[in-house]
Amino acid sequence: MADKVRSLAWADGSLHLIDQTKLPAVFEVIECRRWDEVADAIRTMKVRGAPAIGAAAAFGVVLGAMEHRGDAPLEFTAAMETVIRELAGTRPTAVNLFWALERMEKAFKAQEDKPVAEIVEALRLEAEAIAEEDVKACWAIGSNGAALISKGSGVLTICNAGALATVDYGTALGVIRAAFAQGTEFHVYAAETRPFLQGARLTAWELVQEGIPAALITDNMAGWLMQQGKVQLVVVGADRIAANGDTANKIGTYTFAVLAHHHGIPFYVAAPLSTIDLNLASGREIPIEERAAEEVTHMLGQRIAPEGIGVYNPAFDVTPAELITGIITEAGIIEPPYGENLAKAFQKD
Amino acid sequence: MADKVRSLAWADGSLHLIDQTKLPAVFEVIECRRWDEVADAIRTMKVRGAPAIGAAAAFGVVLGAMEHRGDAPLEFTAAMETVIRELAGTRPTAVNLFWALERMEKAFKAQEDKPVAEIVEALRLEAEAIAEEDVKACWAIGSNGAALISKGSGVLTICNAGALATVDYGTALGVIRAAFAQGTEFHVYAAETRPFLQGARLTAWELVQEGIPAALITDNMAGWLMQQGKVQLVVVGADRIAANGDTANKIGTYTFAVLAHHHGIPFYVAAPLSTIDLNLASGREIPIEERAAEEVTHMLGQRIAPEGIGVYNPAFDVTPAELITGIITEAGIIEPPYGENLAKAFQKD
Repeated sequence: MADKVRSLAWADGSLHLIDQTKLPAVFEVIECRRWDEVADAIRTMKVRGAPAIGAAAAFGVVLGAMEHRGDAPLEFTAAMETVIRELAGTRPTAVNLFWALERMEKAFKAQEDKPVAEIVEALRLEAEAIAEEDVKACWAIGSNGAALISKGSGVLTICNAGALATVDYGTALGVIRAAFAQGTEFHVYAAETRPFLQGARLTAWELVQEGIPAALITDNMAGWLMQQGKVQLVVVGADRIAANGDTANKIGTYTFAVLAHHHGIPFYVAAPLSTIDLNLASGREIPIEERAAEEVTHMLGQRIAPEGIGVYNPAFDVTPAELITGIITEAGIIEPPYGENLAKAFQKD
Repeated sequence: MADKVRSLAWADGSLHLIDQTKLPAVFEVIECRRWDEVADAIRTMKVRGAPAIGAAAAFGVVLGAMEHRGDAPLEFTAAMETVIRELAGTRPTAVNLFWALERMEKAFKAQEDKPVAEIVEALRLEAEAIAEEDVKACWAIGSNGAALISKGSGVLTICNAGALATVDYGTALGVIRAAFAQGTEFHVYAAETRPFLQGARLTAWELVQEGIPAALITDNMAGWLMQQGKVQLVVVGADRIAANGDTANKIGTYTFAVLAHHHGIPFYVAAPLSTIDLNLASGREIPIEERAAEEVTHMLGQRIAPEGIGVYNPAFDVTPAELITGIITEAGIIEPPYGENLAKAFQKD
């Protein structure tokens, strides 16, 4: 994956995305020529993962500007506001989406009175910058976190915090890639991550591509793995980190954090600074998306549970800061007290 | 389910089983006319659940005796030994299988010198007794445990410890059925239980049939549910309980026990005395079955994970006694110290 193909790329005036709902059975790149196709791709999780969503939305704004016909500046501003609002409404939890859209909005405002073609070019450059910065951040996260993986260890991860969840390389999988590149011998356990199976479908796919020794487990095996001494490190991605270090990530992450705590295993979050939301004091303020019941009751389009059963389907959970050993960012590994140290990381930045 | 149809029944000289691999999409009763069909049904999980496996195997022995042609007593004994050994080899973890086969072997030995027809009849009576005792035990477990469920509470369970896992009524689901029958208002959370989805397919089906308010969750949601205060009781079944109280049950049970402990939520095991194995000092001695990788990599016959990924697929885990609040049996609720109190329960019995 890394270096071979990116989760998304801008080419020939459109956004090219790997359709992540079709992996690993089918590798298909879709082309979004309109901003609402990008919105739809985010909503339906063709592109997913906090940093990838942010970059995709940024290119969605570019497409929105390209679609504008007519020259009245006020109309253009109103149209762009709609595009940005609609893109922001696709998914609620990952902050990278809002972070990227804010950057795009600022870039637009700075050019508002220029000819449309110039605005489009400025927006494209900003979106490309967001994508490039994300790749660099992931490489730095990998480099900063690699030493946490020691020889012979078992590393557990959940969901996909890999190249597919970012623009390239990945956050939690970036750490794993970097340690592997350094020649460390270790073993990855990828939790399948129900209901959407990002672990089974995407992380397993990336690990096989890279030749990193790995085993797939169902999510409910994590405790037993730890009890048997097979896990020395847990490393996960993040969708939003509050100012106090509380971290929203894929449902199941909190369970893994409690398990790691019980077994005395270090639990790390890997994320770029763009995932940290200093505007939220704690995780209680992070909106948690609930998704359709069919994600749980159906599999590959077929019903697996009986008609009439209720369903609870939160897509994320919040892990309290006190269960997190450290947060691996491009600015280094941030340790408690997070309230103080997260803010400091931004000052350096 | 309860009262309407049993997981298994002896009729017209054969064993009738609900094919649990086809639920909830298709309700199909299969008829086993040969002992090796019963062995196959256990191995392929057409019948599953510790008490149900025990009862099914007992009827398998009856079929084995019925299949015997010829009168030489030594040949008959040798043939029956083979039948019992093969049935015992179908699955390793649930002790009810070995417990039931031991009872059947004793019943056979007691009749060995009688005519074949008399032996068959004695074996059939013993198998029927095993099945009937299991139903009675489940009703008593329900009655003994019902008061643990208080009004307005959320009750979490894993796998299927229901009518389908026993001969009828269920163990953990027996407790839930009994509380519901008493008019207690509460809400069940059924964990889907990957990879075999006994929760989504079987427990959800039983709950819908009974009209008990319930929501299906993926296994990795359990921690987040507890964190949000939605769970007041965890109750699960068991496949084997060692003399010290350590309990083997479906993979994921240990994770739920650690989570319950972390959140201060009572964690109960519901099981008949036939699931308690006083011959094993601790859970370390319980053999844990590992099943085929395809259970994890495939779903409904289709591959969900990429070729080349490793798989770890233990079907059970062991919850240490110290995480178990109590064990609900037909002889009452057994509390710590288990080493002493489990042995006492058998003396009463």
